[in-house]
Amino acid sequence: MSGHERAMSERIRISEIFGPTIQGEGPLIGRPTIFVRTGGCDYRCTWCDTDYAVLPEYRDEWAAMDADAVMARVAQLSGGGPALVTLSGGNPALQPLGPLIALGRSRGYRFALETQGSVAAPWFAALDWLILSPKPPSSGMTIDWDALDACCEAAAATTSRVLKIVVFDDADYAFAKTLAARYPKLPTYLQVGNPAPARRNDAPATQADLDDLLGRFRWLAGKVMADRWFAATILPQLHVLAWGNKRGV
Amino acid sequence: MSGHERAMSERIRISEIFGPTIQGEGPLIGRPTIFVRTGGCDYRCTWCDTDYAVLPEYRDEWAAMDADAVMARVAQLSGGGPALVTLSGGNPALQPLGPLIALGRSRGYRFALETQGSVAAPWFAALDWLILSPKPPSSGMTIDWDALDACCEAAAATTSRVLKIVVFDDADYAFAKTLAARYPKLPTYLQVGNPAPARRNDAPATQADLDDLLGRFRWLAGKVMADRWFAATILPQLHVLAWGNKRGV
Repeated sequence: MSGHERAMSERIRISEIFGPTIQGEGPLIGRPTIFVRTGGCDYRCTWCDTDYAVLPEYRDEWAAMDADAVMARVAQLSGGGPALVTLSGGNPALQPLGPLIALGRSRGYRFALETQGSVAAPWFAALDWLILSPKPPSSGMTIDWDALDACCEAAAATTSRVLKIVVFDDADYAFAKTLAARYPKLPTYLQVGNPAPARRNDAPATQADLDDLLGRFRWLAGKVMADRWFAATILPQLHVLAWGNKRGV
Repeated sequence: MSGHERAMSERIRISEIFGPTIQGEGPLIGRPTIFVRTGGCDYRCTWCDTDYAVLPEYRDEWAAMDADAVMARVAQLSGGGPALVTLSGGNPALQPLGPLIALGRSRGYRFALETQGSVAAPWFAALDWLILSPKPPSSGMTIDWDALDACCEAAAATTSRVLKIVVFDDADYAFAKTLAARYPKLPTYLQVGNPAPARRNDAPATQADLDDLLGRFRWLAGKVMADRWFAATILPQLHVLAWGNKRGV
C-alpha cells in the first residue's frame, strides 16, 4: 500500500451527511451547501445543539468512512455537480480530513470548516473557508489561546478565515470583543445564541421560539450599535428561523 | 467658484438619513451601516415599499443637501468613526453622488449603492459595493439590458458588483436565472419577496407576517435546491423579520 493509498483509506468518523440545504450561519449565510458532520468532540458545551455528534454514547451510530465513500455520498446529494461542502461536527478538526478535501477540490468542490479552534491540523491550508468559533463563557468551556493561534496560522493565504462567536449574554459579548481585538484582521460574526433543547438523535424537532430568537437578535444588534462596533456582523441562525430546531436542514 | 467647489455644492435630494442599523439584505447582510436614502425614482414598482422616497407628492419632504451636509449628518450618527454608508432610494443613481462618495472615502467611510440598474453614473467606479437589483416581472417594470450593461461597466475593478433579485413567484425566479446566466461573474443573491403594504410616510409600522415570509423563504430555497443552483445565495430581509415593516431600521 502506497502512502497515498494509505491516506485515502484512512477512516473518518461520520455522524451524518445531508443536503443540499442552506447554510444558516456566518459568512456563507444563504448559500446552498452539503453538510458533512463528523462524530466526536473535545468540548462539552452546556448549550450544545448536536449531542448526537458529540457524546460517546452515540458512537455506535457514527460510520467509519474513507474519503472516497464520503465524496461518493456528497456527489450523490449534489447531483454530481461541484458544490460547497461544509465540514462540521462535533469538532471536525479531530478527523483525518486532508485526503477528503484534496479529493473534493480536484473535482471542483469547495470546502468550509467550522471548528472551535482547539485543535489545529495542517490540512486547514487546503480549505476555502476556516470558520473559527471559539466558545464563549456561557458554554462552560475555557479557551486555549495557543491552540487558537495555531489554527489561525495553519490556514493558507488562500483560506478565508473568520471568527464566529455565539453570544447569549453580556459576558459572551465581552469575550467576542476580546477575540476581535486579538485578531483584528479576521472578520467577526456575532451569532445570536439559540437556547434550544439539545438535539438528541431520538428527539422530535422542536418549534423555534421566533419571538425569543428575534428579540435576542435585536438585543445584540442594539449592543453593537451602541458601541459603534462597525466591523462586526450580527446574524441569527437562518435555518432555525426557517425550519425550527430540526436535524437535516 | 472652482469646479471642485461647484461639484461639492451640488445638491442631493435626500429622503432620509438614519442609522446605524443592520443592513438586512444582500451581500452585506448583518453589517452595521448608515442609510442615506435619496428621493426620486424612474420606476414605479407595484410592490414598492418606500413610496415616500419615490412618488412626486412627497417631494416637499425631501431635503436638498450638499455633500458636506450629508457627511456631517452621517458622521453625527456614526459617532465620528468611519462606517459603511448604504446609498439607497428611490433610485440613488439619479443623484449627483460623486462628491459625497469622494468626501466620505477621504475620511475612511465605505460606500454601497443599491440601484435597479436603469441609469449608470461614472462615480459608480468610486463605490466599494455596487448592488444591482433589476426588477423582476412581478414589479410591472421592464428591464433595459443596455442600461444594466452600462451600470456593470461603470464599476471599477475595486468595486464589488453583485446581483440582488427579488423573487415573488415562478416568473421572477425564471428572470433571476436569465440574469445570472447573462452575468456569470456576478454573485447572485435571491431575496424573498415581501408582500407588505407600501410604506407611506404617514403609515404606522405593520407587523411582518413571519409565517408567510419564512414560508416564502422555504419555497425559494426549495426551488434552488431542486435545481442544484449552487451559485445562488438565498436570503430574507432580516430587518423585516426583526423589526417588521417599519421606517428607520
